[in-house]
Amino acid sequence: MSTTHTGKIDIIKAAASKINEVDFENLSFGSVFTDHLLECDFINGEWQKPVIKPYAPFLLDPSARVFHYGQAIFEGMKAYKDESDDIWLFRPDENFKRFNNSAVRMAMPEVPEDVFMNGLNELLRLDEAWIKKGKGNTLYIRPFLIATGQGVIANPSDDYKFMVILSPAKSYYSGEVKVLIAEHFSRAANGGIGAAKAAGNYAAQFYPTSLANAAGFQQVIWTDDATHTKLEEAGTMNVFFRINDTLYTAPTSERILDGITRKSLIDMAKKEGIAVEVRPVLVSELVEASKNGTLKEIFGAGTAAVVNPIIGFSYKEVYYELPKIENSYASQLKDKLTNIQHKLAEDTFGWTVKV
Amino acid sequence: MSTTHTGKIDIIKAAASKINEVDFENLSFGSVFTDHLLECDFINGEWQKPVIKPYAPFLLDPSARVFHYGQAIFEGMKAYKDESDDIWLFRPDENFKRFNNSAVRMAMPEVPEDVFMNGLNELLRLDEAWIKKGKGNTLYIRPFLIATGQGVIANPSDDYKFMVILSPAKSYYSGEVKVLIAEHFSRAANGGIGAAKAAGNYAAQFYPTSLANAAGFQQVIWTDDATHTKLEEAGTMNVFFRINDTLYTAPTSERILDGITRKSLIDMAKKEGIAVEVRPVLVSELVEASKNGTLKEIFGAGTAAVVNPIIGFSYKEVYYELPKIENSYASQLKDKLTNIQHKLAEDTFGWTVKV
Ligand SMILES: Cc1ncc(COP(=O)(O)O)c(C=O)c1O
Ligand SMILES: Cc1ncc(COP(=O)(O)O)c(C=O)c1O
Repeated sequence: MSTTHTGKIDIIKAAASKINEVDFENLSFGSVFTDHLLECDFINGEWQKPVIKPYAPFLLDPSARVFHYGQAIFEGMKAYKDESDDIWLFRPDENFKRFNNSAVRMAMPEVPEDVFMNGLNELLRLDEAWIKKGKGNTLYIRPFLIATGQGVIANPSDDYKFMVILSPAKSYYSGEVKVLIAEHFSRAANGGIGAAKAAGNYAAQFYPTSLANAAGFQQVIWTDDATHTKLEEAGTMNVFFRINDTLYTAPTSERILDGITRKSLIDMAKKEGIAVEVRPVLVSELVEASKNGTLKEIFGAGTAAVVNPIIGFSYKEVYYELPKIENSYASQLKDKLTNIQHKLAEDTFGWTVKV
Repeated sequence: MSTTHTGKIDIIKAAASKINEVDFENLSFGSVFTDHLLECDFINGEWQKPVIKPYAPFLLDPSARVFHYGQAIFEGMKAYKDESDDIWLFRPDENFKRFNNSAVRMAMPEVPEDVFMNGLNELLRLDEAWIKKGKGNTLYIRPFLIATGQGVIANPSDDYKFMVILSPAKSYYSGEVKVLIAEHFSRAANGGIGAAKAAGNYAAQFYPTSLANAAGFQQVIWTDDATHTKLEEAGTMNVFFRINDTLYTAPTSERILDGITRKSLIDMAKKEGIAVEVRPVLVSELVEASKNGTLKEIFGAGTAAVVNPIIGFSYKEVYYELPKIENSYASQLKDKLTNIQHKLAEDTFGWTVKV
């Protein structure tokens, strides 16, 4: 291992790369990690010097607050390599802002922009061989922050660890997706933490999702917990509904993650002249539109899944199938978005940022 | 370190005890741990052999699911030592049941009774010097289960670690407690995980509680998230209200932890001839009762705090002070409960179990 000291960041290089052990054609999402990670500790009220070092397990005390009280947040981003070997991020400022919004909601310290952005850029440069060219190849980026302070008392931690880990990912193709619309279980409360990318929000969904899986549905579309009449979002995707030629999606709220893919698709659709209405969408409208043939598409939108068409939904034990449709909004928007991300089309929105 | 192999459990003893470094008269809750812990891993669908070993940090992969998706649950119990040096637990079967109910809700494997109960008993016997005699001295017990499986994909983990750590605790006296009644923020959703002792439920409360602290209130009493009209519970305590001579407490639900102290106090109060009504209690009733002088007491009930009197509450920026009252239900019930727990009074309920 060789250590480089720059003014801002220490870099400890791995003795050897693991890259030759990886089959880039057969990647299971989120399971392979690059040679290095970024780490920065928050101790006694201060951020320490960030360090890039070999990816490896680390020690935590059994009483670390993350285990007991769930102070943990994360982000999900992707890096892309263009034909000239330049590396690009997609709206990273949005992830950075959302990360710190999540931090505030979970009573955790905000990560300085310098640590997050420069740290990430350095890390990407060091592990750039892990980013493959060509549409569909990406490097999934996982920044996260956990409470490392000791003590089993339900108070915010004094100490935290910020890390960024990287995982090469093929475009996430999940096959045909049928969804179940939630009638009893919920993802988020009014006045709760649904809008934060807090770790606990995800574990909360596993059990109801496993019930849906057992019934033949890959995902759940959550509804508002008070009335279960309004469509909200899926586990890791916001959701769009096309009725006739208009796209509908729920407004963001305390209960819904303000997805970057969602807001990008809204802007792109509008630019294409597609009518978009951001307003609460009722389950009853969806059922009605399906019955009278005006429901044309449902799709999810998120960094991992990009744009994910949904082929049918179940509600109160009735299954509603969607029509097969040529040149769907989902496929049009997905193409345009991934072309921008991979620098295969002009980025008129100014969303892509060079590393 | 010496290793003992019994049929069921491996015991690796610490080379030396840390007990002489501990000032048992000045313990800060949950901050000091005994010499040993119990650990049992769940790997490839199977519980491994449990081991008792020296308390120490342990290694986790940066992609461990507990960090990213919050699969983590815990319990809180206490051990007591009587005048004959016997060690007692209070309704441990209830904690065990609740632990596994939490596990199911968080899509985690249930811990076998043998691992939980025998493991805990062995651990308590080994570290029994840490349990001090005398009312007010207890050993706080923290069983917990975390997802250790690797991979940043929002699915339940394959691997888990169960641990029990022990912390000597004085009776938790938190001074005068004023509470804020939640008008906007919430702890739990309908159809959510409020009834589970899931780690994420606690971090969710830290930010709103810090706002309450800054306004001079030690705790928040949560209300239902849909209407904010019904009183639910505090951060780590269920709540009782005495209006005239009747005790009221909210029914358990998906949103409320089914507290063991709560249910014990209900049984004890009834036996004392105190009228108890378990039904939704409205914020408006509380305000009304305070105004017309019929509100006599509010108190919290939980393992850590035992019975914690509340001296006043704030709602919509108005502060309502409670009367000072002699021989309160809170003090009567606390005395009776702690006498049973410390074996200073006959346990007619059969709640205490010898280790
Ligand atoms: C709950 C939830 N909703 C929506 C999204 C989509 O957000 P984004 O498009 O920013 O990835 C995600 C994933 O990131 C998510 O976790
Ligand atoms: C949210 C919550 N409510 C209530 C309680 C009280 O439950 P118990 O009396 O079983 O300790 C606790 C603590 O354990 C808790 O965490």
